[in-house]
Amino acid sequence: MPPSTFPVERLVRFASELLRSTGVSDSDAQTCAARLLDADTRGQRAHGIARLPAYIRRIQEGGLNPTAVPHLQRESAVSALVDGDNGLGPVVMTFATELAIAKARQSGLAWIGVCKSNHAGANGVYAQMVVDADMVGIVAAVANTNQMAPWGGTERLLGPNPIAIGLPSGREQRFVLDMATTTVSFGTVRQRAASGQQLPVGWMIDRSGLPVTDPGAIDNATLVPIGGYKGYGLSLAIAALAGVLNTAASGSEVVDHYQDWTTPTNTGQLVIALDPELFRPLADFKEDLDARLNEIRSSEPMDNVQAVIIPGDRSAVSATKAARVGIEVSASLLVELQRLAERLGTSDSLEA
Amino acid sequence: MPPSTFPVERLVRFASELLRSTGVSDSDAQTCAARLLDADTRGQRAHGIARLPAYIRRIQEGGLNPTAVPHLQRESAVSALVDGDNGLGPVVMTFATELAIAKARQSGLAWIGVCKSNHAGANGVYAQMVVDADMVGIVAAVANTNQMAPWGGTERLLGPNPIAIGLPSGREQRFVLDMATTTVSFGTVRQRAASGQQLPVGWMIDRSGLPVTDPGAIDNATLVPIGGYKGYGLSLAIAALAGVLNTAASGSEVVDHYQDWTTPTNTGQLVIALDPELFRPLADFKEDLDARLNEIRSSEPMDNVQAVIIPGDRSAVSATKAARVGIEVSASLLVELQRLAERLGTSDSLEA
Repeated sequence: MPPSTFPVERLVRFASELLRSTGVSDSDAQTCAARLLDADTRGQRAHGIARLPAYIRRIQEGGLNPTAVPHLQRESAVSALVDGDNGLGPVVMTFATELAIAKARQSGLAWIGVCKSNHAGANGVYAQMVVDADMVGIVAAVANTNQMAPWGGTERLLGPNPIAIGLPSGREQRFVLDMATTTVSFGTVRQRAASGQQLPVGWMIDRSGLPVTDPGAIDNATLVPIGGYKGYGLSLAIAALAGVLNTAASGSEVVDHYQDWTTPTNTGQLVIALDPELFRPLADFKEDLDARLNEIRSSEPMDNVQAVIIPGDRSAVSATKAARVGIEVSASLLVELQRLAERLGTSDSLEA
Repeated sequence: MPPSTFPVERLVRFASELLRSTGVSDSDAQTCAARLLDADTRGQRAHGIARLPAYIRRIQEGGLNPTAVPHLQRESAVSALVDGDNGLGPVVMTFATELAIAKARQSGLAWIGVCKSNHAGANGVYAQMVVDADMVGIVAAVANTNQMAPWGGTERLLGPNPIAIGLPSGREQRFVLDMATTTVSFGTVRQRAASGQQLPVGWMIDRSGLPVTDPGAIDNATLVPIGGYKGYGLSLAIAALAGVLNTAASGSEVVDHYQDWTTPTNTGQLVIALDPELFRPLADFKEDLDARLNEIRSSEPMDNVQAVIIPGDRSAVSATKAARVGIEVSASLLVELQRLAERLGTSDSLEA
């Protein structure tokens, strides 16, 4: 069966209604659905509407609070610790990101920590919100599953703790780097393994540090951090800054949200917003950054590469396509979403 | 000839006197020498006293201002743009780091940008200064030579722009991650190539993206960013935040400080200091972070690894050894330093 394509707003409405039917308020359902579809729009499909069934299962099994009210535990002119009240991650992170932007408008700089949150989708979505407010946005999170060992170790004590960095630049506002600290995500590994194909060297290693390429051996292997000890160190630093600093879970405290559907994950995240005007006029910053980005875009590509791109260029192309033709939903995801809608008894249907 | 070993203070005094003889003030000479030896003490030998001859050559050829006075171009409660007046990098960065700490003591958070600076040694040295003040320190810099191509590109438009992250933890205060955004530095490549040995796969690539292992081919190859597009993106983000934001050089504007000894480099750096007390009591943060670090240290190592370590552990071991037995200076570096002292006519000698 070929994939079906829907306008973005159509999918936001559908996802909203499903969330509302589980007790989530209109406003929070709308926010959560919009953020998931923001990820789909950017082409970050692993963090989009495909996550909705898991979000709803977590609510239904009691592991996530559908009526959570994020609130501040601590606050200063340049910071806040947001207690997410074990609510939907995208709702908590939207609250935190808007707070970071508001504080940075006043103080020029803000660092918002988050505890008691949940999986919030793609960091790049929140970094883009900060960039759209003409500020530098840095977003990081403690991942919800540990599949990485410390460099030189064998125990899965770390996740691919991701970080996103967004920079306001020119008309396009499109520099958003959104990266895990492992060479690939475990989701990508699982997908590849399910197809029965060998894994490329550099994705996973065994307890001697040797490459694991056998798709049947992934459960006894660990993800490879980028640059070896460097990616390990970055992942650990993010665990400390997004986790420990915010009284959120990290290391062995992390609750695997696809194994355990009832224990609150106490997910930790952080959002930093910086107004470039602290350092120079915004227009000058954008103009000079554009010059640097454009010298890269117009530089000579490798023999087998069409053009050199900037982090965020692919997401921008994806967003343009999504606005024009909509978002593709695979046949299997469509079936899953329809069944979920039937089970929840919502009136909306993607077949209509 | 075997290496000679000297007490740290002996080398600080020697380096100070050499700097003073070129017109640098007593206080700045002392600061610069101390920071270089801080790097040696931490085991970061490529950024220690071995750099002194190049610093002095740059002063003598007119490319660096020995009597520079760093000053503020812009300032807010949480930020400043430091104009380094083309002075010695370690002096400018010490000024910026102390300012970050002072502002973070007041506001809890500070982001200091630096322009018109020069090579300042190891970022980890400055991150450690912030950690010693019981704060989180993040330090990044635009590197002074471009040897990396954008991912998918062939032109050397980026450097291995390094970043350091330091975290106050327990009694030891030793979590300091100090990393380049390339798998190795070009210095390491050059050293290996000089020995005539093949380069390991993963260090450099050619214009088709294929590994370059021939030690004779390094000048037509580019360094590999960690994690491919991820390290490229990080390097570019650092170029924007430490360079463009601070009106400092990045991309094709970078002056190669080992090729051009007269043009001001306009080196850009940044220092962020964050007081953990904004989020939770410092002692609690340290205690919880220690628990996370210790579960890693006590986790099972790979078959061929003795123990799992934390970023900064090696530097701490190195510092303990330096305090006990001093710093080793290779025979060739010793000859170079002695000749320099003779040429400058300073009274101090390392043979005394």
